[in-house]
Amino acid sequence: MSFKKLSESIEKRGSNLCIGLDPSVEKLPEFLFEYEDSILEFNTRIIEATLDIACAYKLNTAFYEALGEKGWLTFGETIARIPDDIYVIADCKRSDIGNSAKYYAQTFFGYFEADAATVNPYMGYDSIEPFLGYKDKDIFALVVTSNHGARDFQLLEFAGKKFYEHVLEKLSEWNKEKNIGAVVGATKGEQLAAIRKEYPDIPLLVPGIGAQGGTVEEVARAAGDGGAPVVINVGRDIIFAGYDEKFADKVREKAFYYTALLKEK
Amino acid sequence: MSFKKLSESIEKRGSNLCIGLDPSVEKLPEFLFEYEDSILEFNTRIIEATLDIACAYKLNTAFYEALGEKGWLTFGETIARIPDDIYVIADCKRSDIGNSAKYYAQTFFGYFEADAATVNPYMGYDSIEPFLGYKDKDIFALVVTSNHGARDFQLLEFAGKKFYEHVLEKLSEWNKEKNIGAVVGATKGEQLAAIRKEYPDIPLLVPGIGAQGGTVEEVARAAGDGGAPVVINVGRDIIFAGYDEKFADKVREKAFYYTALLKEK
Repeated sequence: MSFKKLSESIEKRGSNLCIGLDPSVEKLPEFLFEYEDSILEFNTRIIEATLDIACAYKLNTAFYEALGEKGWLTFGETIARIPDDIYVIADCKRSDIGNSAKYYAQTFFGYFEADAATVNPYMGYDSIEPFLGYKDKDIFALVVTSNHGARDFQLLEFAGKKFYEHVLEKLSEWNKEKNIGAVVGATKGEQLAAIRKEYPDIPLLVPGIGAQGGTVEEVARAAGDGGAPVVINVGRDIIFAGYDEKFADKVREKAFYYTALLKEK
Repeated sequence: MSFKKLSESIEKRGSNLCIGLDPSVEKLPEFLFEYEDSILEFNTRIIEATLDIACAYKLNTAFYEALGEKGWLTFGETIARIPDDIYVIADCKRSDIGNSAKYYAQTFFGYFEADAATVNPYMGYDSIEPFLGYKDKDIFALVVTSNHGARDFQLLEFAGKKFYEHVLEKLSEWNKEKNIGAVVGATKGEQLAAIRKEYPDIPLLVPGIGAQGGTVEEVARAAGDGGAPVVINVGRDIIFAGYDEKFADKVREKAFYYTALLKEK
């Protein structure tokens, strides 16, 4: 069964919270620069402070790539420090023709051993297919993203439907192995509710809470409705909760705040 | 002026040929495995054999990432070995919200010093904007890709237009700095001709010739019509032209074959 590890981690921790390990280097607590790999130290302390309440960690490749080969080393070492029973999402948003997509799938599922990867659907089925071949791994395809630019194409109406609905229809068709989920931004509450209603069996990865301005209400409702697993990502608002040597305590507090908020709605 | 370096390189070499440095590790000539960094050796020999006839090199990140941090080192070292007057395209097809896209732009334009990057437009303007801020660098946005999956979304007809035409319209609107080009697959001759006619000022990156089955005719016509620069990428068919110690001679022959073909049409 796909998304099994995610469901189990949510169940075990009683939490749908995913923490975004997106370590913008210029925002790191200053004292960490004493460490040889300050980002790895930063990530490790966050993981240690939250591993009983985060069902997943999501690593956005952008923040690691910007540091070149050293960043990729940190990316891999961070994943290695996440306990085996916590779900790891490589937020890479990759897309390419089949021959190249095969190497991307190998990168994130083979080399880095993530449990899931995000993909961009613009290039169609054969750009996603190589990822689907890993039957114990999952993908989350971009459907409605949390940014303002989602309006440019995703929310355009064509033939009585928004463009993202055409994308969802195809994803649903391609979902033979039941290992396709969708990325739906928390800032797009209306679409989130509609998607959940029409596709209750499609797992959702919901970013955009906190720094991006998404609210918790609709997201929490979706997470608690008994459908496929919903994982809610909070990045900056948790990881940059503190800046002194005890920043990890602040991180833990903030993570608790979000899990509580998600539960009470 | 944007795309200046590309135009100058095309002019200087009398060639629109871009060579795709996409070194699938399992296809490398066997003797190269004696070298500490066999991919770097492979790329270097190709560059040395073709630097007078290739106006550009395109490196698809998929093939480097799959090797982890070592691959990223090779990616950077390959770019460093390309002569300064040859145009370098990082074929990364990235897309993310603005805060993350900023780091991707920094990766390819700042850290690796490529001249251009490919981007995926699905997430809209703010996902592309950070790249556009680098005024002496260019982007090529995916418009009609060379793969079969292009039919799934890009070629769907909505409101009297294909989806990719809506994308092109927006790109054209956003192109204030004249540093946006478009990726149009050689396998989509009909769309290539139509796009060239309607947007003669948008530079084109045309992949899909050779192993992917695209033909040279329409592409060569577009390249020679006096509009914005057109760069034609050939990957596998050139770089894997030979497998013995003299493979670089075969690579050079094949590159000549393509430049001649492009000129005579």
